[in-house]
Amino acid sequence: MSSLIEPRTLQGFRDYPPALMIPRERVLQTARAVYRSYGYAPIDTPTLEFAEVLLGKGGGENDRIVYRFKDHGDRDVAMRFDLTVPFARFAATHVPQLGTPFKRYAMGPVWRGERPGQGRYREFWQCDFDTIGTTSNAADAEVALVINDLFTALAFENFQIRVNNRLLLNGLLEKIGVLDKAVPVLRSLDKLAKIGREKVIEEMTRDAGVSAEQADRVLKLAEALGTNADILSAAEATFDGNPNEKAREGLLRLRELLSIAEMAGIPEGRIRIDLSIARGLDYYTGTIYETFLTDLPGIGSVCSGGRYDNLASKFTKQVLPGVGASLGVDRLLAAMEEIKHPWMTGQSTPAPVLVLQFENTWLGHYQRVARGLRSAGIGAEVYPEVKRVKAQFEYADKRGFKVALVNGSEEFAVGVWKIKDMVKREEMKVPEADVVAAIRGILEV
Amino acid sequence: MSSLIEPRTLQGFRDYPPALMIPRERVLQTARAVYRSYGYAPIDTPTLEFAEVLLGKGGGENDRIVYRFKDHGDRDVAMRFDLTVPFARFAATHVPQLGTPFKRYAMGPVWRGERPGQGRYREFWQCDFDTIGTTSNAADAEVALVINDLFTALAFENFQIRVNNRLLLNGLLEKIGVLDKAVPVLRSLDKLAKIGREKVIEEMTRDAGVSAEQADRVLKLAEALGTNADILSAAEATFDGNPNEKAREGLLRLRELLSIAEMAGIPEGRIRIDLSIARGLDYYTGTIYETFLTDLPGIGSVCSGGRYDNLASKFTKQVLPGVGASLGVDRLLAAMEEIKHPWMTGQSTPAPVLVLQFENTWLGHYQRVARGLRSAGIGAEVYPEVKRVKAQFEYADKRGFKVALVNGSEEFAVGVWKIKDMVKREEMKVPEADVVAAIRGILEV
Repeated sequence: MSSLIEPRTLQGFRDYPPALMIPRERVLQTARAVYRSYGYAPIDTPTLEFAEVLLGKGGGENDRIVYRFKDHGDRDVAMRFDLTVPFARFAATHVPQLGTPFKRYAMGPVWRGERPGQGRYREFWQCDFDTIGTTSNAADAEVALVINDLFTALAFENFQIRVNNRLLLNGLLEKIGVLDKAVPVLRSLDKLAKIGREKVIEEMTRDAGVSAEQADRVLKLAEALGTNADILSAAEATFDGNPNEKAREGLLRLRELLSIAEMAGIPEGRIRIDLSIARGLDYYTGTIYETFLTDLPGIGSVCSGGRYDNLASKFTKQVLPGVGASLGVDRLLAAMEEIKHPWMTGQSTPAPVLVLQFENTWLGHYQRVARGLRSAGIGAEVYPEVKRVKAQFEYADKRGFKVALVNGSEEFAVGVWKIKDMVKREEMKVPEADVVAAIRGILEV
Repeated sequence: MSSLIEPRTLQGFRDYPPALMIPRERVLQTARAVYRSYGYAPIDTPTLEFAEVLLGKGGGENDRIVYRFKDHGDRDVAMRFDLTVPFARFAATHVPQLGTPFKRYAMGPVWRGERPGQGRYREFWQCDFDTIGTTSNAADAEVALVINDLFTALAFENFQIRVNNRLLLNGLLEKIGVLDKAVPVLRSLDKLAKIGREKVIEEMTRDAGVSAEQADRVLKLAEALGTNADILSAAEATFDGNPNEKAREGLLRLRELLSIAEMAGIPEGRIRIDLSIARGLDYYTGTIYETFLTDLPGIGSVCSGGRYDNLASKFTKQVLPGVGASLGVDRLLAAMEEIKHPWMTGQSTPAPVLVLQFENTWLGHYQRVARGLRSAGIGAEVYPEVKRVKAQFEYADKRGFKVALVNGSEEFAVGVWKIKDMVKREEMKVPEADVVAAIRGILEV
């Protein structure tokens, strides 16, 4: 049929059928609930902005990957490639009215025209949260608490939050006289886990122009092992017990973060000082966060962030320091599939109950009992057609319904509802007034 | 400062600050919960598709308004302008595996480069739900139930669901010999409420090429008034008590819908037969739905839809009839602002409790009590800085916090927590173990 259009999608873009979308909604809803519980307020910004707003006046590295075009009014526009730049533009516009401190979260798709790969898409979702307008370490400590509560709420048990502070790293760079090379040095350091010590030293000496000995000093600090206390002691020792101002501030902030987390009840061992994490991005200036799934370390950090000195300097003279992190939803979903996370049930219905249809004259009854379940918070679908019972049960199994209501003339004649537990394959009959309670019992809700 | 970039947004696009985003999230979450409770499963599709997929081979009316451009690979791509065409493409791809009937909902932004206006944006959100793969009227009746439960859950009391059936209208057009002119005739009829009888007749005779008498017959049917029973009788009378097959089927389906709704417990008067609603879109073939807010009829329908014969004929030979409706989120939010809907509180924090900070050495305690509240389902923010108490209270009032925890050295010395009801301006002191219960009491949760 040459007149049919091929129903293809663009490479790097994907459909979410129910079995994948149900867990994605659960992840987003969980993140939303955790962020809100800490007082982060939701905002949204347009997906399309003036290209200048997203890319800056000169353009830059993001120029290559951004989806950019002329709109109907011949304006130079672009699709957002992250949620940070639009937040900066938003902050410049609204923070004068909203006031500081300002805590926000934002969730939505972003677009990057990069080569797609395993778990990497051209359209993918980010979930960011940030506190801006304060340099207080209270906000930094809170980010670690949020990440802990988020992954706990996401039903992960084995995860680790790694924290570092760039002030400490910069303190060392200052001490060894290469602070002016911080950007390329830390960008190389960030690759340690990926490319290994030798290659990092090679890159640091070649690209950042530091000596092999200087590179070695940085790596020695980064590689400190042991308990958090051990690592902090090793860091002190690097400064011969007399850290300079930057390092002292970095150490103080890390210690305070650990102490707040402990008093707030975060499990021991959950937060680990890791002086090797630096993040590739230039704008981080203080605390750095990465989050690893212990069962799947190879996938990299699934929630990362840090402190920055000034969010919106491109747009306003108001100085807006802040701290926050971002959950990589699509990478997390890929990880959940791989480790067979309990939320990846394969179920493709959000409702647990299916009401079978025997005759359409009973539709009003079917919908009445279904609405009773819905008001009680139990989702219930009424099968829309009169079909063989076998076909309706097959549909129930395929979609993953847990309970079926199976009422035909026999049951209506005596005024009962027949309930089938689709998992145990057991049946019971109850009066209409008891349907909700009986199904609650089966579903254990 | 000429080096600053102006933080402007594109015309027709807008930011959602917290006071607007909190109600939007509530609307979306409510729609999601209602759709799910009926067994509609979530799906998502890319925002960007091949232009051919969205616009068809020849392009068409949507060509003018769609955001379309060449991507990095020189592919002709476009941003979706609704959720229906992507769903059709999705269905052609996935329904062979997923099977029918298939019930889905989808929520997300769509883009149209039209002239923006009051409550009309170039980027706006749609929330669609559909059942496809069945012609059964059970699915049609359910759409009306969903709309009822949706607006009830959205805390509207005064709304009306108007239904019609194009089969009935087409039956009349067939009877008077102008069925071949159904598309332009019904498109004109759809404007009745907006432009009035005279103009509709003018348009029908001029553009659709029917006689003034024929136009009058259509309008007489459309204008039938009274109870649902009165209107159905008037429709019967139009056919001299002997409707043709189309009209008979239309009347039957309307009657069945009303009867199911009544038995399912939908309040009387909620669903009204209105033979004047036709929807402008050509692809509707059966039941038609519109939803009006009785307090704000001028804003037009806030949830509309209908039955169609074949969703995905552009993409597949599989015939996929279906029925569904779409909630216009941005129009609804505009309406909620105008009628001062109870959800438009102006509050800009999603958390009810603010924990004030007096000394940063107590941060661990502040976060411990806050985490206790969060685990109990009560959002609690810890103010990130040590500031004057007055400034912290002003922040609490500006954001709309309901309760403040106000603990300084005095309270810590005797081991109590001081709780302030921000609405009643009352204070109490309780031991830490009683904080959750005391705040539950204030918030009445």
